[in-house]
Amino acid sequence: MEKKKYLYLFSEGNRDMRNILGGKGANLAEMTNIGMPVPQGFTVSTEACTQYYHDGRKINDEILSDIYEYMGKMEEITGKQFGNPQNPLLVSVRSGARASMPGMMDTILNLGLNDEVVQGFAKRTNNERFAYDSYRRFVQMFSDVVMEMNKEDFERIIDQKKEQKGVKLDTELDAQDMKDLVKQFKGLYLEKMGKEFPSNPKEQLIEAIKAVFRSWDNPRANVYRRMNEIPYDWGTAVNVQAMVFGNGGENSGTGVAFTRNPATGEKALFGEYLINAQGEDVVAGIRTPSPISHLKDQMPKVYEQFSEIAERLEQHYQDMQDMEFTIEDGKLYMLQTRNGKRTAAAALKIAVDLVDEGMIDEKEAVLRVDPKQLDSLLHPQFDAQALKAAVPIGKGLAASPGAACGQVVFNAKDAQTAVKSGRMKQVILVRLETSPEDIEGMQVAQGVLTVRGGMTSHAAVVARGMGTCCVSGCGEIVVDYTHRCFTLGGNCYHQGDWISIDGSTGKIYGEAIPTVKATISGYFERFMKWADETREMLVFANADNPADAQQALDFGAQGIGLCRTEHMFFDSARIRAVREMIVARDKEGREKALAKLLPYQQSDFEAMYKVMGERPMTIRYLDPPLHEFLPTKDEEIADLANELGVLSTDLKNVIRSLKEINPMMGHRGCRLAVSYPEIAEMQTTAVINAALNVSKEIGISIEPHIMIPLIGDVHELKFVKDIVVKTADKLIKKAGSDMKYQVGTMIEIPRAALTADEIAAEADFFSFGTNDLTQLTFGFSRDDAGKFLGYYYDNKIYENDPFAHLDRTGVGKLVQMTATLGRQTKPNIGLGVCGEHGGDPTSIEFLQKMGLDYVSCSPFRVPIARLAAAQAAIKNGRN
Amino acid sequence: MEKKKYLYLFSEGNRDMRNILGGKGANLAEMTNIGMPVPQGFTVSTEACTQYYHDGRKINDEILSDIYEYMGKMEEITGKQFGNPQNPLLVSVRSGARASMPGMMDTILNLGLNDEVVQGFAKRTNNERFAYDSYRRFVQMFSDVVMEMNKEDFERIIDQKKEQKGVKLDTELDAQDMKDLVKQFKGLYLEKMGKEFPSNPKEQLIEAIKAVFRSWDNPRANVYRRMNEIPYDWGTAVNVQAMVFGNGGENSGTGVAFTRNPATGEKALFGEYLINAQGEDVVAGIRTPSPISHLKDQMPKVYEQFSEIAERLEQHYQDMQDMEFTIEDGKLYMLQTRNGKRTAAAALKIAVDLVDEGMIDEKEAVLRVDPKQLDSLLHPQFDAQALKAAVPIGKGLAASPGAACGQVVFNAKDAQTAVKSGRMKQVILVRLETSPEDIEGMQVAQGVLTVRGGMTSHAAVVARGMGTCCVSGCGEIVVDYTHRCFTLGGNCYHQGDWISIDGSTGKIYGEAIPTVKATISGYFERFMKWADETREMLVFANADNPADAQQALDFGAQGIGLCRTEHMFFDSARIRAVREMIVARDKEGREKALAKLLPYQQSDFEAMYKVMGERPMTIRYLDPPLHEFLPTKDEEIADLANELGVLSTDLKNVIRSLKEINPMMGHRGCRLAVSYPEIAEMQTTAVINAALNVSKEIGISIEPHIMIPLIGDVHELKFVKDIVVKTADKLIKKAGSDMKYQVGTMIEIPRAALTADEIAAEADFFSFGTNDLTQLTFGFSRDDAGKFLGYYYDNKIYENDPFAHLDRTGVGKLVQMTATLGRQTKPNIGLGVCGEHGGDPTSIEFLQKMGLDYVSCSPFRVPIARLAAAQAAIKNGRN
Repeated sequence: MEKKKYLYLFSEGNRDMRNILGGKGANLAEMTNIGMPVPQGFTVSTEACTQYYHDGRKINDEILSDIYEYMGKMEEITGKQFGNPQNPLLVSVRSGARASMPGMMDTILNLGLNDEVVQGFAKRTNNERFAYDSYRRFVQMFSDVVMEMNKEDFERIIDQKKEQKGVKLDTELDAQDMKDLVKQFKGLYLEKMGKEFPSNPKEQLIEAIKAVFRSWDNPRANVYRRMNEIPYDWGTAVNVQAMVFGNGGENSGTGVAFTRNPATGEKALFGEYLINAQGEDVVAGIRTPSPISHLKDQMPKVYEQFSEIAERLEQHYQDMQDMEFTIEDGKLYMLQTRNGKRTAAAALKIAVDLVDEGMIDEKEAVLRVDPKQLDSLLHPQFDAQALKAAVPIGKGLAASPGAACGQVVFNAKDAQTAVKSGRMKQVILVRLETSPEDIEGMQVAQGVLTVRGGMTSHAAVVARGMGTCCVSGCGEIVVDYTHRCFTLGGNCYHQGDWISIDGSTGKIYGEAIPTVKATISGYFERFMKWADETREMLVFANADNPADAQQALDFGAQGIGLCRTEHMFFDSARIRAVREMIVARDKEGREKALAKLLPYQQSDFEAMYKVMGERPMTIRYLDPPLHEFLPTKDEEIADLANELGVLSTDLKNVIRSLKEINPMMGHRGCRLAVSYPEIAEMQTTAVINAALNVSKEIGISIEPHIMIPLIGDVHELKFVKDIVVKTADKLIKKAGSDMKYQVGTMIEIPRAALTADEIAAEADFFSFGTNDLTQLTFGFSRDDAGKFLGYYYDNKIYENDPFAHLDRTGVGKLVQMTATLGRQTKPNIGLGVCGEHGGDPTSIEFLQKMGLDYVSCSPFRVPIARLAAAQAAIKNGRN
Repeated sequence: MEKKKYLYLFSEGNRDMRNILGGKGANLAEMTNIGMPVPQGFTVSTEACTQYYHDGRKINDEILSDIYEYMGKMEEITGKQFGNPQNPLLVSVRSGARASMPGMMDTILNLGLNDEVVQGFAKRTNNERFAYDSYRRFVQMFSDVVMEMNKEDFERIIDQKKEQKGVKLDTELDAQDMKDLVKQFKGLYLEKMGKEFPSNPKEQLIEAIKAVFRSWDNPRANVYRRMNEIPYDWGTAVNVQAMVFGNGGENSGTGVAFTRNPATGEKALFGEYLINAQGEDVVAGIRTPSPISHLKDQMPKVYEQFSEIAERLEQHYQDMQDMEFTIEDGKLYMLQTRNGKRTAAAALKIAVDLVDEGMIDEKEAVLRVDPKQLDSLLHPQFDAQALKAAVPIGKGLAASPGAACGQVVFNAKDAQTAVKSGRMKQVILVRLETSPEDIEGMQVAQGVLTVRGGMTSHAAVVARGMGTCCVSGCGEIVVDYTHRCFTLGGNCYHQGDWISIDGSTGKIYGEAIPTVKATISGYFERFMKWADETREMLVFANADNPADAQQALDFGAQGIGLCRTEHMFFDSARIRAVREMIVARDKEGREKALAKLLPYQQSDFEAMYKVMGERPMTIRYLDPPLHEFLPTKDEEIADLANELGVLSTDLKNVIRSLKEINPMMGHRGCRLAVSYPEIAEMQTTAVINAALNVSKEIGISIEPHIMIPLIGDVHELKFVKDIVVKTADKLIKKAGSDMKYQVGTMIEIPRAALTADEIAAEADFFSFGTNDLTQLTFGFSRDDAGKFLGYYYDNKIYENDPFAHLDRTGVGKLVQMTATLGRQTKPNIGLGVCGEHGGDPTSIEFLQKMGLDYVSCSPFRVPIARLAAAQAAIKNGRN
C-alpha cells in the first residue's frame, strides 16, 4: 500500500484542495503557485486531524516523522534551521479548516525560540529588545493558546513590570525588561503546569499542532459548527509557515485589507496597518492603526505592489478578498487571502458590481450571497454605535430575527391596553411561554421574550410568521406574573421597564437600545430578479390573515402554501362560538355553534382571496386538539360556563374529558373531521362561498386548494374528501358556477409517507408538514426534546437540530418515498413543503433534489427561500 | 364483454367456491355434487352483494333479471311454480358469508306464500292448519327479519289469542286461529309499515335478498367482523332453497347434529331433533328436543341413512361436521353441513384423533386448532352451570382472558393488606386506571377491572403478562375512591362486595360466580409437539421476574425476548433509591443512589438467570420517563421529601421540571442513558456480574443479551453501546472470564427502521417494539386514540385495531425495510418482535413472511404463539 500523504508544502497545493488543506492552506498554496511573495511552509492536512482523533487524540508516529521531514524541507527552502541559534528558523502555526471557524485556535507566532536560539536571533537581527520581545510574546502565546493558561496572569506580570518601571506603554520596556518578563513567564508556567516550559522547538511545534487539532473539538467550535452546519468529521488543517517580522523597525509593519469595502461594497482598497508591529498588535487595539491609503504616502512602492497584488487576487478569485500582509524591512509578504466576509448590503452590491464589471455571470452572482444574510435587510437592527456600549444581561435562543426595544409587559391583555391607550409606544411581551391566546398581544409587541420553548415553540413559529423579533427559551429568567416582574442576571425588571432583545443573536439587554429600520436597496431588486429567473421551485408563504398575505406578496411570494384556519378562531368574538361548539353535547348543538362561526370564517377567506386574487392559496382545515381552545384557569372556566349557560362543573368535566396524555398524537387534524364531519362541512362552505363571491365580485377565477391535515390512511382522506366534495359541488352547482377546486393532504404522519401510493389516488397535492413528520419519525416531541437534545449535541450524536434543518437520512427518506410513490400513482401530483424547513436554505437544497414543486415559509423568510431555491437549482444543475 | 355470472345453481358450484358462494352455498353445492339429498336451489354470489353496495345499496336490473331467471330454473328442477296456488314452490332464504357470521340475518322460511297460494298449499298438503301455520310463521319472520319490526308485538298477539281461547300451547291453536293470526299480523304490518304486507312472492324474495345484503353492514356484523378480522369487502352470499317441511306431521321432523361431540371431541353422532317441527322450533326451546340416538328407534331407516351421510360427509371434508337436516314425510333432506365449531379441548382431541385415524397428517392437524382458542385451556373459566343463571351488570373490554371472582378493593395497598391478613381470600382490584405503582396489588388480585384504558393500556398489558384476568375501559362505572365504592348498572358496590369478571368476554357480574381451574389434557402435549416440530420461528416470552419466567418455561417458551428492568424498580425497597437518583442534582448524587440500586438489580438478574439457565434472555435497559417513578399527590410528595431530606418545594420543582407535554415522545428510553450514562453503567454492571456469578455457580455458560430501547440514530446506539462495552469488558476481564455478550436495539422509532442499514452496523440484534412503532407510524397515542377510534370503525376507515393486529401496509412496510436493510449490512443479524403483536396469530403470520427469527409475548400467550407460528410456517411453505 502506498503511504498516505498527510503533509503538503505550499508549493504542492492549490486552491481546489480546500478539503485537504483547509481554506487558509489552499490559498497560501495558490498564492505561492501564482508567484506571490508568500513566506514558505507546509500544511498538515485535515486528514491528519481526522487520523489524530481516530488514534484516540494522538499524533501517530508516521505523521510525526512526516512533520519532521517537512520541517527539513522548509529548512532547505528558507536556508534557515529550526532550533539553530546561528541561523534560526522561526515559524507561525495556524489552524485552517475548510470553512472559516472563529471558534478554533487561531495563531502561535515566533515558534522555535528558546533561551539559546533567542540569543542567536538577537545577534542576527542585531536587535536584542526585538528578539526578547518576540520570545516573551511566544512564551505568552504558547502558554495561553496551546496550554490554555490564564491570559490575564501574564498581562498582570507585564502591568507589574510597567508599574515598577513607572512607564505606561509596552514599547517603553527595554531588552532587559523583556528578558525579565520571559523569566517570570516561564516561572509562572512551571508553577501552573508543573513542568518546565518546553525548550525543544520540535516539542513546541508538535504541542502547537496538537493544540490546533484539539481546538477542533472545543465547545465554542462545536457550537459554531452546529450553527453553521459544518460537519464534525471535516477536521482542521494546520499551517506551519516561516515567520516574517513586521515589528523589526520603522521599515516594517503589518496590516489587513479588503479589495472592496466589506460594509458597503464600495470598490476601493479598504483596511488598516501598523508600522513596527506584529499581527496581534493590530487586533489588540492598543495602538490605532492607519487607514491603508496612508501607506501610499508612507511606503509608496510597497503600497503599489500591494495594490497590484490585491487586484490580481480579486481577479484570480473573482471575488472580494480579505488579505493579511507583513512588511519586513521594506519587503512585502502576503500571509493570507480569502473571500472576505461582508454585510448583506455589501454582498448584494459586490455581486451586482462583479456582474457589471464582467467578472462573473448572473448565476454566479446568485451564489455569492448567503440567503440567511438577507434577514438583516428585512428586520430592524440595533443602532451599531449604541450597541457597542451595551452589555447583554442574558441570552436565549435566536428564535425570530431582528432587534426590538420596548417596555416590559407580561400578558397579551396588558400589551394591548398599554399600546392602544398610548401609555406605552413600544412593548416587549415577556412570557413563560406563549399560547394561541397571546397572539393579539404578540401582534402589538415589538418583540417577544419567553422562558421556555425552542426554535419551533409556539412563540418562535408565530413570531417568525409575523416578522416580530423573538428570543425564546431563556431558562435563566425567573418570571413572577403576580408582581409583574422578572429577574435575570441578578436584576429585577418590572412592568414598564425598558429592555432590548436581539432575535438574530438571542441576546437580551436590560436597557433601551435604539433600532434602525430595515432598508432594501436597488441592488436587492436586481439581484432577486436574477434569483427568480434561475429558480425552479415556487416560493409560497404561510399566512393566515390579509396583512401577512400582503406582506408575503411584497416579499415576492407566489402564493400561500399554508393558510391555517385555527388562528382565525382566537379572535374574542369567534372563540365564543368555537367553545360553544366544543362544549355541545350533540351534532345539533355543534351545528348551531358552527352556523355562528360560518360567517366569520367565510369573511376571513374572502379577505384573503381579495389580497391573493388568482394566486394559489392552500387552506388547511382545523388542526389543533380542541382543548387548546378552552380556558384552563378556574375563574376563566367559571366565566365561560356563565356565558354558555352551563354548569361550571359540567364544563370542567368537558375540559377534563378532552385532556390528553400525548396531545401531539391525540384527537386533532383530520381526526376532528372524522368525528365531527360538520366541522369540515362548515369550513368547506366558507371556502367555497368565499371563492365564489370574490371571483364574481372582482371578475377573476379562483381555484380553491383545500388541505386535510394529519392523514395517515387513504380511507381517512377519502372519508373527509367525500364530505368536502359533496358540500362543495352542491354550492358550486347552486351558484351556477363551473369553479374548479383541489383537495390535497398534508404528509406529516410517517404512515402517510409509507402509503403515499394509496393516498395519492385521492389527493390532488401533497404538502409535507415537516415539523410533525420530524417529530414522529424521530419519536420525540419538540416541546420536550429540549430536556435531552443538549446531551445529544455534547456527545455529537446529533450535529444539528432536526427541526431547523431537515434530517436527510431519516425524514428525507420518507420525503423521497412519498415523492416516488405519489408520482407512481399520479404523475402530476403537486408536491410542496409547508413546515418550518420550507424557509431553511439547507433544507431547500435537499427539497430541490427531491424535485418538489414548491416550498412555503413565513412571509419574512420568503426572500431567503427565493434565493436559496435559486442557489439550489444552480447547484442541482451542476451535479 | 361476457356477462358476469352472479348466480349459481347448487349443481353449478362446489366446496372450493366459498369466496363466491359463501360457506353455506359452497357446501350445499358440494353435497349436491356428491349425491346427497339436498333440496335444490341457487346461490346469489358474494359479488352480487359487493355490487349491491357499489350501486348505492340497490340490486341492479341485471342481477334482478338473473334472479328471476334462476327462479325459473328452480321451478323446472322442482316441478313446482313460485306463486302458483295449484303447485306452489316455497323457498327459504338464508345468508351465507365466507366465514360463519352470527351477526347477520339468518333465515326466512316459507317464502312464496300469500292469501291465494296458502289455499292451494292447504289443498295440496291436505292440512289447512299446517298451511296457515306456515303462512303465519312466514308473515311473522318476514316482518321481524326483513322489515325489522318488533318481534314481541307478534308474540303478544299470539299470547292474546291463546288467552282468548284458554289454551297454553301453540299446538292447541287450530286452523281458524292461524287464519286469524295471519290477519292480525298483516294488520299490524300495515299499521307499523304504512303499507300492505307484500303479497307478490317475487317482491317477497327480492326484499328478503336485500335484507341479507343489508345485514352484512349492520352494527353487530361490523363488530363481529372487527373481532374476527373478516374484511368488509368480502360481502355475503344469499341461498334460495326449496322448502321441505318437518312440521307436516308425525312422520316429519327436523334436527341438528355433529359427527363428533363438540364439547369433548368424543367420536359419536351428537345432536338433537324434534318430530313435527320446523327449524325455528328447535332453537326456540318451547319443546325439548330428543337426543339424536333416539331417532334410531323412532325412524330406524332415516337414522341409518343419516348416519351414513354423516360419516361420508366427515370423510369427505376430513373434519368434524355440523349438519342440519329435515325429514319430510319420512324422507331425509340435508339442509346444511359445515366444519363444526368446538371447544378447545374438543379441537385438540379431534385433531389428534383424525391423525390417529389416518384421515389427516400432523401438519394438517396443526392447522385445525384456532390458536386463540388455547387461551381457554390456560385460564380459569366460570363454572358453566353457575354462569347460566348469572346476568351481567356491565361490559368492558376483554383485556386479559380468564374468569375471576372476588371481593372488591380499590387500591393496591388495600388489596395487599386484605389478602396478606387473610381478611379476604380473593379480591378484584377496581381502578380508574392502573399505573406501575399498582403492580403489587395486581399480583395478589384475582382480576383487575378498570374504568379507562384500552386493550393496550397499562392494566391490560400487565395483566396479560401475569395471566391475570382483566376487564378494562368500562366507562359506565363511576368510581368513588373516597367512599370506596363504585356504581354500575344502577347498583352500588362497596369494598368487600363480591363481583365476577370475565376477561375473555369483557362481562362484569355483580355477584360471586364460582370458577373452575384451567386443565391441560394429554392431547395438548402431543398436539403442541407437532406444532413445535413444524414451527420455524422461536417463541420467547416477555417476563420480568422469576415466577413469570418459570411460567413462561412451563408454557414452552424458549427464552425471554423482553425482560423489562423498570418493573423491578417499583418494589418499595428499591423505589426509594430510584427516586433518590432522579432527585439527585448531579452525577455524583446519581451515582450514590445507583450504587444502592445495583445490588437489587444484580440479584434480580441472578434470580432470572437461575431460572433461565443458558436460554437466551434479552434485558432491556430503563425505558420509561423518570417522572413515572415519582409520586403525584401532595402528601406523598411531602413524605418523600422528608425521606430524602429535601425541601418539599424543591422536590415539587423537580417533579414539575420532569413533567412532559408528550411523555410518550419525551425523555425516555436510550435518551436517559445518553443524559445519564451512569444508569447504563449500573445496569451493565448488574447484568454482567449476575451472568458471571450464575455461570460460575451452576457451571453453565450464559451469554447476556442487552437491549437498548428507543434508538433512532446509529450514533445514539454507538454512544450507549460504548458505555456498555467499556463497562462489560472491564468486569469480564476482571473476572478472568471469556464470557460473550450481545448488544442489540429495539426498533420502535420510525427513523430506526428507515436507517436500519446504519444501525445494524452497531447492533447484534433488532427487536421490534411494535407498540411504539405503531403509535409513531400512525401518529396516535394509544392512550388517547380511544377518543376517536370508535368513529374510525363506524366509518370503516379502520377495520381493525392496529394495536391488536399489526398494520401490514404501513408498519409492516417499516418491518420489511428494517429486515432488508439490516440484513444488507449484517446478514446474520437477529430479528424478533417483543411488542404485543408477538402473541397475535394474525401478526405472527405476517412476521413469518418477513422471515423473523423469533416472537416474544406474555407467558400466557406462549402456547398461542407456538401454535400460530407453526401454522404460519405451514401456510408460508404452501404459498
